[in-house]
Amino acid sequence: MSTNSILAPIQSDLQAVEIRLRESIRLDYAPLANVFETLIESGGKRIRPALAILASKFHPADQDKMVTLAVATELVHAATLIHDDLIDKSPVRRGSPTISSRWSGTATVLAGDYLLARAADISASIENFRVMRIFARTLMTICEGEIRQDFGGAHWPPNRAEYYHHIESKTASLFSAATEGGAVLSGAPDAEIAALKTFGHNLGMAFQVVDDILDFTADARELGKPVGSDLRQGTFTLPVFYYIEQNSPAQAGDILSEDLDRLVNTVRNSSAIDASKAEARRFAKVAQDALAVFPDNEYRRALSGLATYVVDRTL
Amino acid sequence: MSTNSILAPIQSDLQAVEIRLRESIRLDYAPLANVFETLIESGGKRIRPALAILASKFHPADQDKMVTLAVATELVHAATLIHDDLIDKSPVRRGSPTISSRWSGTATVLAGDYLLARAADISASIENFRVMRIFARTLMTICEGEIRQDFGGAHWPPNRAEYYHHIESKTASLFSAATEGGAVLSGAPDAEIAALKTFGHNLGMAFQVVDDILDFTADARELGKPVGSDLRQGTFTLPVFYYIEQNSPAQAGDILSEDLDRLVNTVRNSSAIDASKAEARRFAKVAQDALAVFPDNEYRRALSGLATYVVDRTL
Repeated sequence: MSTNSILAPIQSDLQAVEIRLRESIRLDYAPLANVFETLIESGGKRIRPALAILASKFHPADQDKMVTLAVATELVHAATLIHDDLIDKSPVRRGSPTISSRWSGTATVLAGDYLLARAADISASIENFRVMRIFARTLMTICEGEIRQDFGGAHWPPNRAEYYHHIESKTASLFSAATEGGAVLSGAPDAEIAALKTFGHNLGMAFQVVDDILDFTADARELGKPVGSDLRQGTFTLPVFYYIEQNSPAQAGDILSEDLDRLVNTVRNSSAIDASKAEARRFAKVAQDALAVFPDNEYRRALSGLATYVVDRTL
Repeated sequence: MSTNSILAPIQSDLQAVEIRLRESIRLDYAPLANVFETLIESGGKRIRPALAILASKFHPADQDKMVTLAVATELVHAATLIHDDLIDKSPVRRGSPTISSRWSGTATVLAGDYLLARAADISASIENFRVMRIFARTLMTICEGEIRQDFGGAHWPPNRAEYYHHIESKTASLFSAATEGGAVLSGAPDAEIAALKTFGHNLGMAFQVVDDILDFTADARELGKPVGSDLRQGTFTLPVFYYIEQNSPAQAGDILSEDLDRLVNTVRNSSAIDASKAEARRFAKVAQDALAVFPDNEYRRALSGLATYVVDRTL
């Protein structure tokens, strides 16, 4: 099922998000406005805004604040993409040249900072301090996680436990901030807030594991970068850990001395891919199970559908 | 007069700020905690926290929130210092190696981001949305100003008007956010908020002009960097603009082709220094005049004293 049909129940909310997203980056200073426009208009699936909106639907929430929360979520995501592309030296993102490939490192850093400040400014207008703090702390988690990676050097993360910790801070933290934030905004009781936070966390984990699988199995043209980019840059992800565990535990540190094209191809065709996919499915199942506290309505079905989609997607 | 004696009326508040500053950067992850500790403990004059506190004193403000605001102000300042040192490639700050000289560009960027997130987290606990938005917008102003500088390239800013615009975004914006934030927190009426914002803005302008003068006139050992660093890096500041206006308007673009040691020395001994000092004094005077709406109490005298200090300081 496509995200469009899964998200049909919140289509009008998502349209409001698109309009507000564009408004939020309309700036006097043209160079900055242009790069943000390229980044925002090149799309992405808006999964994080959708999560914030869906999580706010089980109790009556202020529609304007809900849209604002969704916009802030996407702006934080966009800011982290800008800094990620700089860190990874990625030339292309969603078919467009990255900001970091066009601007100096300095200007790229500042562009990301600007978007974070804009997100904070917009969040303040929601006038909910608990939501505000959820997002500030998520940003701290994301930064600390990336610093740990930077300090860990090549082959980072060093083992499967560290890998899970890293994708938690890198991806799952913002997914769970979106669902927790939406739930808090709607005035949901604590047990439901906890359930939606659990849902967001596990969906984010599944999402990132699948991203890391697709880095091996998708088509270079669809990816917009060479297959196996992470491994080529010396970063080990879940398929690599499974490959090492299943094949050659003794030489884990040495695999990068092999021919990289051959290594990427070997991992791609190994059972490590299926094992990783099973792991993503387990995370998605935990996410779906957390929804049991809610009535079986269109919003719960949409959330559950997202969990299935995230695992089954081919890009 | 020293800042210690000027700030005597708020000494206990400033001590509370020091304690809370240290608490705010106590983190599990040691590498990050250590660099923040070095940055925060190496001091600085805490002028921004002092401004936030003094501006909140004309009406009864919640002491805990006032200290929180002061801490958030200093954290935003610290974050911009981290990014500034990276941008300027400065090896030393206040006698200690900069984070950017010890860490990768990536980790340095993220360390700054982390502090901004921490500042946002702390600010949210003040539970005042107007204050929150003042700071978010200040951060946007700072980022946009630095991006303009980065895009402007060498010799930037190109003229005196651009110079004022730049030091407004770089320095005065956070000074005025501190005074405006303090006033808002205390529930001051709009006219007083405006007066304190004007005070902060003009004090910040005076402060930065004097910083730019000291870059020429102070001792290299006291500065911790070569005399005339800005000019050596191709950045024109107020003394340079006055020097060009007074001496050689035709060759403004060419002065950097001269011998740089000689050029720095010439500017240092020219009347451009006195002209710049007079300009700083004008800004300080406008700041002091804005205080006329307040009763002549110890807090107003402290603010006025700060304006005098900022111009007369030798480092």
